[in-house]
Amino acid sequence: TINADRLWDSLMEMAKIGPGVAGGNNRQTLTDADGEGRALFQRWCEEAGCTMGLDTMGNMFARREGTDPDALPVYVGSHLDTQPTGGKYDGVLGVLGGLELIRTLNDLDIKTKHPIVVTNWTNEEGTRFAPAMLSSGVFAGVHEQDWAYAREDAEGKSFGDELVRIGWKGDEEVGARKMHAFFELHIEQGPILEAEGVDVGVVTHGQGLSWTQVTVTGKDAHTGSTPMPMRKNAGLAMARILEKVEEIALSHAPHAVGAAGHIDVYPNSRNVIPGKAVFTVDFRSPELAVIRDMEARLKAAAEEICTHMGLEVDFEKVGGFDPVDFDEGCVAAIRNAAERLGYSHRNIISGAGHDACWINRVAPTAMVMCPCVDGLSHNEAEEISKDWAKAGADVLFHAVVETAEI
Amino acid sequence: TINADRLWDSLMEMAKIGPGVAGGNNRQTLTDADGEGRALFQRWCEEAGCTMGLDTMGNMFARREGTDPDALPVYVGSHLDTQPTGGKYDGVLGVLGGLELIRTLNDLDIKTKHPIVVTNWTNEEGTRFAPAMLSSGVFAGVHEQDWAYAREDAEGKSFGDELVRIGWKGDEEVGARKMHAFFELHIEQGPILEAEGVDVGVVTHGQGLSWTQVTVTGKDAHTGSTPMPMRKNAGLAMARILEKVEEIALSHAPHAVGAAGHIDVYPNSRNVIPGKAVFTVDFRSPELAVIRDMEARLKAAAEEICTHMGLEVDFEKVGGFDPVDFDEGCVAAIRNAAERLGYSHRNIISGAGHDACWINRVAPTAMVMCPCVDGLSHNEAEEISKDWAKAGADVLFHAVVETAEI
Ligand SMILES: NC(=O)NCCC(=O)O
Ligand SMILES: NC(=O)NCCC(=O)O
Repeated sequence: TINADRLWDSLMEMAKIGPGVAGGNNRQTLTDADGEGRALFQRWCEEAGCTMGLDTMGNMFARREGTDPDALPVYVGSHLDTQPTGGKYDGVLGVLGGLELIRTLNDLDIKTKHPIVVTNWTNEEGTRFAPAMLSSGVFAGVHEQDWAYAREDAEGKSFGDELVRIGWKGDEEVGARKMHAFFELHIEQGPILEAEGVDVGVVTHGQGLSWTQVTVTGKDAHTGSTPMPMRKNAGLAMARILEKVEEIALSHAPHAVGAAGHIDVYPNSRNVIPGKAVFTVDFRSPELAVIRDMEARLKAAAEEICTHMGLEVDFEKVGGFDPVDFDEGCVAAIRNAAERLGYSHRNIISGAGHDACWINRVAPTAMVMCPCVDGLSHNEAEEISKDWAKAGADVLFHAVVETAEI
Repeated sequence: TINADRLWDSLMEMAKIGPGVAGGNNRQTLTDADGEGRALFQRWCEEAGCTMGLDTMGNMFARREGTDPDALPVYVGSHLDTQPTGGKYDGVLGVLGGLELIRTLNDLDIKTKHPIVVTNWTNEEGTRFAPAMLSSGVFAGVHEQDWAYAREDAEGKSFGDELVRIGWKGDEEVGARKMHAFFELHIEQGPILEAEGVDVGVVTHGQGLSWTQVTVTGKDAHTGSTPMPMRKNAGLAMARILEKVEEIALSHAPHAVGAAGHIDVYPNSRNVIPGKAVFTVDFRSPELAVIRDMEARLKAAAEEICTHMGLEVDFEKVGGFDPVDFDEGCVAAIRNAAERLGYSHRNIISGAGHDACWINRVAPTAMVMCPCVDGLSHNEAEEISKDWAKAGADVLFHAVVETAEI
């Protein structure tokens, strides 16, 4: 089994980079802090005897050689970037859990037939640059690289420019690598495993996601002197649409969720009726038909509300992926590892999107999850126990070693 | 009568400072552009033979001497600051209309018994630093100067520091001046005068305002993996409260208005359920009892919504003033001037707040309004005609000269 103290120490060391304001992290993608986190990860990987590859999307690949020169590598990993007010484990556990398994193999002096590669995927969170899982998406051929480079943050800075600025744009062609398999360890980010007292989740499916950016256009006007009947209040229309988002998601309960995390009104002045509201609706379900239904009902409801109020509304799909079925063989490797190690486990559907969801399109893929306190994530108070981290990393270790063959 | 071309040229010249993005202006208070606008106004005033006074709130006072050394001055003026996406006339017409009447008196070589002082009040708009009409409020003894200095913008910069930074903090004690009367010319910012084809509005009353900043606290959590029943979605609670704001204001129609122009959610990330929403509700009515009723119902509704959803809610009053009755003598001077000049006129209640609303507490005060296209203001497309500007400035000129006595 892996060394839980060493894994934990590395998690705490990484968490010092890009500290948040309430005990968590703000290490958003392609910031200086992201660069620092990458440098630390690279140093650790090189100390563990790995060589580092870097592709044109800034994806990092730390390789431990195998014994068979013709065998494709087994990949593990996740992401080191965080939300603006994110936790210490979301993504990081999967990357450093991968590093820990390399360190353990070194300790035990075990050679595998297949090389093992630990990956840090760029911009998984999608906060600074939508969509989420951007670079694993380019790797998997879902997005064009030029399109990805052109993504802009709220200040108008582009992904491509920022990647160059922090010095982490590599030469290697993105997506050129072939994988024997891909495994990702991640915290659940939901309440199920903790509530049931289960050590690990064997992720069989991932729910699908749809991000629709809604732009409501009304008319800036004075909040005092504009009569109520003359108003074209884009903020009020937004409020009505947000209520519909809740209603639509609840109509599919418990097989769907919906919310808007991103909300901006313009010009955002106390005495100006908002002339514009821009917000992103996040709908998810394990069933594609449910997602399509929610998208269609959102558009119909928003159009009805805005037409009634004399406003314009536009929709842009800024992210999304279909529900995922993970590879049966890889899922079995995860389940067998949990069995062998005596960890309690259950099948689980991932509520969040993960790099594994995209990589599953180009390689046999599966995920293992560990619980997190109160199911809380995307919050600085995100927390896990060292025992939970150990269980997840142990299962990852055994599944990977089985797949990479000794 | 005044020189309409000269007034218009000055309006267009001032509008070159702090241009907006759509033909209007972004000359927010205490920005570099505000400083430039002030310098231009000072130069024009000095060219017209005035001396400039500057108080500790940055209020500017351009004085044309009278013939009686014991007579208190008649004040006119408004503000040169604008909304972030504001128009070229809101406030500016009142300041440059005041300058135009001085220029006209010079042309005609008329001496008045009372001195005439043209004022530019600092931070009328209240966008960058709440509340609106901040410095006329300090002048009138409504706010403490130290409290005003401590107001902060969205970046945490204080009013006091920014006033020093742009170099427009004077030595004169704020509020020390005594006024014979105060007159303010302003665009209506509403649709009534244009719709009725009336040249000028004789402002008899100003409606009252209440700004309540509402903070809803829920819990940041993942939009994908957090089950619907576990969510504490502050953005959704805000949406429900915004619907109530509309309902409450409409229940008093047509004697009240309500909206929220300022809306922020945190952390404002597409895949984070907002843990916090902060927004400002703007309620107005000519009747104080109606304002108090709306405030009370807002709190009750927000508390009910948030309690039901398991969220916290807090309220802070960040601005407001009671409805205003302008001085009968000054109102009559405006009406008589319109009559004498043959302009059509009607009594009107100001829908917006104005510096005159505060100055009315320390001096006999009245306002004259001119129409604006489509009643549109706090919008870069705000527009008036040169004829409308002329009518308003002519009435201001005659009311002031009558009051200042030849
Ligand atoms: N795991 C995770 O939080 N990924 C971000 C993409 C998503 O919103 O699901
Ligand atoms: N006239 C004007 O727009 N003043 C700003 C204060 C208010 O919101 O009424």
